[in-house]
Amino acid sequence: MTLPIGPLDPSSDSPLYRQLSASIRSLIEAGRIPKGGRLPATRELAGQLGLNRATISAAYELLEADGLIAGHVGRGSFVAGGVRPARLNWREIVGLSAVQAPGAPSSTPLASFSSSRPAESLFPMDEFRQTCEEVIGSGEAQTILQLGSPAGYSPLRRYLLEQARSEGAARESDDILITSGCQQAFHLLQCALLHPGDTVLLEDPVYPGMKKVFEQSGARLSGVPVHADGLDIDAFEHAATNGHPRLLAVTPNFQNPTGATLPLPSRRTLVEIAQAAGVIVVENDIYGPLVYEGEALPSIKQIDESGDTVLLRSFSKIAFPGLRLGWVIAPRPLIEKLTEVKQWTDLHTDQLSQAIMLRFAQSGRLERHRQHMLEAGRERLHAVIDACRRFLPPEVEFTRPRGGMSLWLRLPEELDASELLPRAEREGVTYLPGKYFAVSRPQTSSLRISFAGMAPDQIRSGMAVLGRIFQNELERVRARSPLAEAPAMV
Amino acid sequence: MTLPIGPLDPSSDSPLYRQLSASIRSLIEAGRIPKGGRLPATRELAGQLGLNRATISAAYELLEADGLIAGHVGRGSFVAGGVRPARLNWREIVGLSAVQAPGAPSSTPLASFSSSRPAESLFPMDEFRQTCEEVIGSGEAQTILQLGSPAGYSPLRRYLLEQARSEGAARESDDILITSGCQQAFHLLQCALLHPGDTVLLEDPVYPGMKKVFEQSGARLSGVPVHADGLDIDAFEHAATNGHPRLLAVTPNFQNPTGATLPLPSRRTLVEIAQAAGVIVVENDIYGPLVYEGEALPSIKQIDESGDTVLLRSFSKIAFPGLRLGWVIAPRPLIEKLTEVKQWTDLHTDQLSQAIMLRFAQSGRLERHRQHMLEAGRERLHAVIDACRRFLPPEVEFTRPRGGMSLWLRLPEELDASELLPRAEREGVTYLPGKYFAVSRPQTSSLRISFAGMAPDQIRSGMAVLGRIFQNELERVRARSPLAEAPAMV
Repeated sequence: MTLPIGPLDPSSDSPLYRQLSASIRSLIEAGRIPKGGRLPATRELAGQLGLNRATISAAYELLEADGLIAGHVGRGSFVAGGVRPARLNWREIVGLSAVQAPGAPSSTPLASFSSSRPAESLFPMDEFRQTCEEVIGSGEAQTILQLGSPAGYSPLRRYLLEQARSEGAARESDDILITSGCQQAFHLLQCALLHPGDTVLLEDPVYPGMKKVFEQSGARLSGVPVHADGLDIDAFEHAATNGHPRLLAVTPNFQNPTGATLPLPSRRTLVEIAQAAGVIVVENDIYGPLVYEGEALPSIKQIDESGDTVLLRSFSKIAFPGLRLGWVIAPRPLIEKLTEVKQWTDLHTDQLSQAIMLRFAQSGRLERHRQHMLEAGRERLHAVIDACRRFLPPEVEFTRPRGGMSLWLRLPEELDASELLPRAEREGVTYLPGKYFAVSRPQTSSLRISFAGMAPDQIRSGMAVLGRIFQNELERVRARSPLAEAPAMV
Repeated sequence: MTLPIGPLDPSSDSPLYRQLSASIRSLIEAGRIPKGGRLPATRELAGQLGLNRATISAAYELLEADGLIAGHVGRGSFVAGGVRPARLNWREIVGLSAVQAPGAPSSTPLASFSSSRPAESLFPMDEFRQTCEEVIGSGEAQTILQLGSPAGYSPLRRYLLEQARSEGAARESDDILITSGCQQAFHLLQCALLHPGDTVLLEDPVYPGMKKVFEQSGARLSGVPVHADGLDIDAFEHAATNGHPRLLAVTPNFQNPTGATLPLPSRRTLVEIAQAAGVIVVENDIYGPLVYEGEALPSIKQIDESGDTVLLRSFSKIAFPGLRLGWVIAPRPLIEKLTEVKQWTDLHTDQLSQAIMLRFAQSGRLERHRQHMLEAGRERLHAVIDACRRFLPPEVEFTRPRGGMSLWLRLPEELDASELLPRAEREGVTYLPGKYFAVSRPQTSSLRISFAGMAPDQIRSGMAVLGRIFQNELERVRARSPLAEAPAMV
């Protein structure tokens, strides 16, 4: 290949290699050497232009540094961005699913009922700052910043395990693992316990992250209905004794999304059924500390005298969810296995956050903050229940949780919660439609209202909007339906 | 069942139910009611003792609260800790492996060559504290503590991506994901890209965490030898073109454990081979910023004009490994998929640490600290190379890295590095024997020396001990060997 390069000017201020580089650059930019096209070998071009090879090499190096050409050992230099022998088809490789997880809306809404998280306006920032200063000012700070243990920061592990023991939620045969939030606890359990083809029993409806995490193992997900008083125990018994399920994941307190709580007698029966069927019970108790009304019930772990229940807890629903911290309390061999998996998953949980949350708890600040959260939560719970009564059409059913962060609305079945969402969003109100929570049964007419992150006024304004939208749609649908078609007046 | 309980005293200060509870407790503790044994129904015991049922119930509740008995709805109360219908066999369920990952020794050693981590005595604590105060005192603090994005804290993502773009290590077609350290990046890649039966090419020897993470996917691991000048490119070409491997994980700079660096021409050839064979290249560049001697080479990602290389980086080898922070730069569809997997794995990376490291980097403190680490590293590298020359028997081969954290010793093949370890440990010196790093070839006579975490004096003392142990063993072994057996003088 002969390049159409004119004579260079040896008397110019610009060295020859720069002149040559500029000439080739303009040929590339004009498309006269195509992308992927091979440049002449340095020896060849040196001969053509009457220059020495070092000059050609220097010009090529300059072009390469600018990303215009790329050199391949033994094959020469090529114009960059051209034909590649095996450019990978990444979309195909990763099998990207078309349906993405629901994200937060971009504009500032009037009322966002879509996220189960504490309000950041309630974060006790001064106490957090005080805690940070104590931790980073302590003699332990260097150790905290060094590589840690897969099982978690020892002082935090001891603190949480002792607390659980004093509550009867951990036996002598139990141990503890600190995780990067409860979501990771589920992921580690999935890695440690499940094989493709295993059956996993999930509450139906359930938090989407729970479905996703177990799907990754290739397990078959089977939904056990959740009613206003929690998991349907008869349905669980049927599923436990028939399908040889490996595991049940259950949220006995203020279940996400329904807000339902499993009564004490059902908890006892659940343990008996699970034991008889050899089903592993994973108790997700992240909402347990958020009791706004009435008494806290004993956890399944506390009731289960075999000690086999796997208990998951977290700080994220009370305090700072940006610090990813949860923990698992379970029989020692399982904790040993989970710790091994954890080590190859991410070495260990962030240690600064572990030390900060330990200090936050030990100083009594966490409990003071929790009391504050309970007051706020109570007010918000009352606001949302009142607003449901006041604004929703009487045909809409809703759960009445005593704590936690969300309740569950069931619209008349002619209404589709997904279809109505864009209408609500146009008025600045968001929620998550039931379909995201469905396991085995469709949940098209249902939706989740997460109330704990919003002030009572916002809750009222938002529910007023939803009530109006549902009412209008109901009238529109019913006006169209045959029953509503009154005979013509003649 | 009649309980042998004597008459209670109604005139005592202690209420009747407490007296009854104490009586039953002593019967249980004496073993007179066996574990798992059923207590009489409240009605029955009330009749026997002439008390009312509420008194019996209250006594039982007290025992239950103390964990001594457990009630079952409809079945009565049982002494806790007894026969259980289906106590799970956890060791069998989790298939606990007998061989555990190597842990740190418990006593304070003279010289620990076993962990590849920066020395905590070099942590710039004042600058870290200053950074923390700036972050938690800023108006962003509330947002940082709130639930974040699976892809990572946006300001940190932007900062790192722009930096990579300015270095030519990220294309327009690339995106970034923040991970909880590089170990998690590997875990997510494994979840997103591999299927059981896939072949993964690993450097041989390689860091054990790399083997473990890919084993979890059920992939077949195949080792490509690493020599003093890095990955054996001919062996890689053979493996890439024959076994249809899915992925190559490669550490071109200061590979762990060998400390070897892949020369520039080999990097170019590697990219060509990988492209021709359609092998995904995962470039683990966590040691790249730790160049103590000579110039940094362009990364594979920078060379690869297709943009397909997946680049992993981390703060953990320069700054504070207790804060788990790494990142992946890769083509956008892969980042999208990894972000989805990340979300179901642990929602997102700890946000406080992300904000702190961003501030630490943006303020220039990270680069200042890196320069300090380079000075210290250079000194330590010289100390370990000098000590190898001075103390090791001449038959011991060792690599001569120009950066990073470790070098690799090969003892004469009669010596077994695992067998010699306990002897070293008794003298307060630890290292990791080659067997932990072996993929396809045994590494019995090799061992890793991680030098970067120790002061030069410690390095010298430790190597002196090792040199003596190796020399003694070599003499002992050779004295025994036939060649050394001189004929008797007669």
